Amino acid sequence: MLWSGWGDPAKAAPLPESVTGLLRDLLGVTPRESGPAGLRELAGLVATAPELTGAAREALRGAVGAPDALREDAESRIRHTGGKSTPDLLRIRAGELGGLPAAVVLPGSHDEVLAVLRACAEHGLAAVPFGGGTSVVGGLAPTTERPVVALDLRRLDQLLALDEVSRTATLQPGLRGPQAEALLNARGFTLGHFPQSFEWATVGGFAAARSSGQASAGYGRFDEMVLALTVATPEGTLDTGRAPRSAAGPDLRQLILGSEGALGVITSVTVRVRPLPAARVYEGWRFPDFTTGAAALRRLAQDGPRPTVLRLSDESETFIGLAQPDAIGSAELPQNPGCLAIVGHEGTEAETAARRAAAREVLLACGGEYLGEEPGDRWEHGRYNAPYLRDALLDAGAFAETLETAAFWSAIPALYTGVRDALTGTLTEAGTPPLVMCHISHTYENGASLYFTVVGAQGKDAIAHWAPAKAAANDAILAAGGTISHHHGVGTDHRDWYAQEIGPLGIRTLQAVKAELDPSGVLNPGVLVPAPAAE
Amino acid sequence: MLWSGWGDPAKAAPLPESVTGLLRDLLGVTPRESGPAGLRELAGLVATAPELTGAAREALRGAVGAPDALREDAESRIRHTGGKSTPDLLRIRAGELGGLPAAVVLPGSHDEVLAVLRACAEHGLAAVPFGGGTSVVGGLAPTTERPVVALDLRRLDQLLALDEVSRTATLQPGLRGPQAEALLNARGFTLGHFPQSFEWATVGGFAAARSSGQASAGYGRFDEMVLALTVATPEGTLDTGRAPRSAAGPDLRQLILGSEGALGVITSVTVRVRPLPAARVYEGWRFPDFTTGAAALRRLAQDGPRPTVLRLSDESETFIGLAQPDAIGSAELPQNPGCLAIVGHEGTEAETAARRAAAREVLLACGGEYLGEEPGDRWEHGRYNAPYLRDALLDAGAFAETLETAAFWSAIPALYTGVRDALTGTLTEAGTPPLVMCHISHTYENGASLYFTVVGAQGKDAIAHWAPAKAAANDAILAAGGTISHHHGVGTDHRDWYAQEIGPLGIRTLQAVKAELDPSGVLNPGVLVPAPAAE
Repeated sequence: MLWSGWGDPAKAAPLPESVTGLLRDLLGVTPRESGPAGLRELAGLVATAPELTGAAREALRGAVGAPDALREDAESRIRHTGGKSTPDLLRIRAGELGGLPAAVVLPGSHDEVLAVLRACAEHGLAAVPFGGGTSVVGGLAPTTERPVVALDLRRLDQLLALDEVSRTATLQPGLRGPQAEALLNARGFTLGHFPQSFEWATVGGFAAARSSGQASAGYGRFDEMVLALTVATPEGTLDTGRAPRSAAGPDLRQLILGSEGALGVITSVTVRVRPLPAARVYEGWRFPDFTTGAAALRRLAQDGPRPTVLRLSDESETFIGLAQPDAIGSAELPQNPGCLAIVGHEGTEAETAARRAAAREVLLACGGEYLGEEPGDRWEHGRYNAPYLRDALLDAGAFAETLETAAFWSAIPALYTGVRDALTGTLTEAGTPPLVMCHISHTYENGASLYFTVVGAQGKDAIAHWAPAKAAANDAILAAGGTISHHHGVGTDHRDWYAQEIGPLGIRTLQAVKAELDPSGVLNPGVLVPAPAAE
Repeated sequence: MLWSGWGDPAKAAPLPESVTGLLRDLLGVTPRESGPAGLRELAGLVATAPELTGAAREALRGAVGAPDALREDAESRIRHTGGKSTPDLLRIRAGELGGLPAAVVLPGSHDEVLAVLRACAEHGLAAVPFGGGTSVVGGLAPTTERPVVALDLRRLDQLLALDEVSRTATLQPGLRGPQAEALLNARGFTLGHFPQSFEWATVGGFAAARSSGQASAGYGRFDEMVLALTVATPEGTLDTGRAPRSAAGPDLRQLILGSEGALGVITSVTVRVRPLPAARVYEGWRFPDFTTGAAALRRLAQDGPRPTVLRLSDESETFIGLAQPDAIGSAELPQNPGCLAIVGHEGTEAETAARRAAAREVLLACGGEYLGEEPGDRWEHGRYNAPYLRDALLDAGAFAETLETAAFWSAIPALYTGVRDALTGTLTEAGTPPLVMCHISHTYENGASLYFTVVGAQGKDAIAHWAPAKAAANDAILAAGGTISHHHGVGTDHRDWYAQEIGPLGIRTLQAVKAELDPSGVLNPGVLVPAPAAE
């Protein structure tokens, strides 16, 4: 993972001249005068004096068996700093090294995680569970005066069990998306979880942040796949889930899912798996406008047949998406491309064909125009590329960020307008009118998610320039009845709005749980809920 | 509701002579010498001195507006004592009045519930939320020295909102199943939740105890239908749920679902609703044995098409069920009736026909024999009658009780054998060999529920006679990897095994939540989790 941006540096590509021209002409983006700092240069700035006391170092070293499992070098620490939100990237590109962990530990087992947490509790350290490091909401940015230990879970990368009769698999948390899929595919199964962060994010992170994949219409969200969890806390082990469903009390799995490392460290995840689909087909559909397209998606989500992938871009996203970089500004572009939907089906040959035919009838009846498989294949091919594009936009001096929410169907129109207006209004008023795009990527019987992408000029201080727009979008989300996050999570960035969403008694409930499982406040302090005032 | 048994006394029917003969010959059941005590007679035994202090009475009266909303008469108190487990019925039939509440209050609004809880906290009272009073696991039997107030929610019986676009309905908790269905049906919708207790249990109880209905394969469990909850606690109001799905932290809805009145009083429930089905068809299928039938159910649950109702009785339950009372012992009975499955489909005419045809192919391929609609119609007709039958069996001097569990598919065979053997072994050793029957009534991709019915002779002291068998069954459930309850809940009867199931840290977590929401221990003390030692 690129320390200052996304993914594999070999996959990065600069923007075509046509796009930089459009950024300049349409959004007033001016190229940056200098590129990001270099990693080696930055590492040289890190104080060489260790932040851990000798006793703390000894305790951590005692907790983990492997020789290289405790790291205090500057590069390891920089690589475990912050996440991948645009403000995170802007900060690290600018060479700002606030929030550097004092050390990185790589436990090799559940028991070693327990031992690390005990060591942290004894020596006044904070611990931040670190999977792919892909949080975009400040989930890796604890609020604490304590020295921070990044708890890198990459060594926990095994498929522990596969029950082919029950169709369940027990996975360790450090498995990245492709690793988990490869292990399951080799046995004929799939998880079916393909979020945009798939190539880098981990199973533990999927669970801890309630990830939702691009095939969620067919395979469900990650939290819906989870059947059992093992969790290490400073107070010991919590094992939860021994049946697909239960009436034995509150569902403690649902207390750990979404807990973002603040209540415990997930050390194994038992998930539902499905047979690898024999057939896969992705189609493009065109709707005249977002309202008509959304009604079609709702019809499929409520009355079926339910596709495996179901997405709808609004007019602006469709326009920009259709606008192939080389074609931008040319006369070949349609004046009104409408709204593009991607409809995918996976399963056996027979069921895929049947579902596809039935869905086609519904989509036609709802005003859709069939565009063939080419837009679907194009979407599939580029589905993990957006974060690379963001790096290129940042390189070109533009600002690009995403945010998302979900609500019941009847609230979707006002939510869409409210968030768009908040983003456009705030940034226009600040002198940088943005391009705001949106899509629906997750649909349910009772509602859907909205995912917004904002591109604009950076302004003088890009982070300070963005903050009021993000705050206004969050306010608009709550005002329109949406949830502050459908799949990115709370982290520190959404914490204040999350507190409004669940109310003071909700926050007190979570703080009480945290106080019980993590009485000395080791785990990701300040993430999800504010640290208690006493600390 | 009959105070000493089930349902509407007008629907009760005595057992035919052939059945009492069978009970005598097969199970050694001897008729009881005397019938149950009368309500009036029992009420005469209740001490007339009130248990509430004057100050407590004044506070409760101040909390509820309606003139008749605080009741201290003996009959009201008896009618709010305990639930409907067989031990509950045996106790009240014997005229045992332990656990009588001091008073019954009937709040008319969320704010009145809050006020009642505050009054209870101030005056050292315990409060037991009371819906249909149908708990079969001691959910209405708090462990406390405090005077108990039964918080009867029947006045909260409104449909507060119906969102036809989002297909959601907001219901008050005191609505009984048929009341809720009638309100929704009038608007063209259904909840699709039909547990055996449907006619008497309430929406609040469905949520608080994670009820699962007989059409769960198609409509889902009640906890899967719940989108939002409003909860009154002694510390104020908790509002949770504003989108179909969310990544905003742990799911607090899932902390209240299954909390059985110990963490708060549910005062409104927003649920997913579906259009009333145009078509409904229930079929009977025969399988040669339970293993073959279970494999067929698994195939449908994992690969589809998923019926709306999917049930399978084992050999003993099929034999007894097929044995029409009048035919018992006659030569007309088949020697090996195999295992009866009920497969039901609901939906539009077209989708029901398509699903039915596809399911038929799967069932035939899995060794099923089609028996036509008659067994399905018979099942539908009698689906709520089993509790009446239990009363008749008790009247005849027999003992009858049910228990249930769930596990992943691969654990089902050992779970089935383990629980059967535990029940049969314990009761046979005690001199009363029982008839143990079982069915699968809820299926999931990854597992299923098992529901056991035990019929036998009562023994000298029926409750004491049953206790070791129930304990042995619970031990066997945990040993085989099952959950202590799939849909009955924890109450007080399963509390010790529940503690084993979720472990000490799980219990501490729930106690921490309870201490935060209910610091003085008002709510259903001792239900779900033991009251903290200090109390």
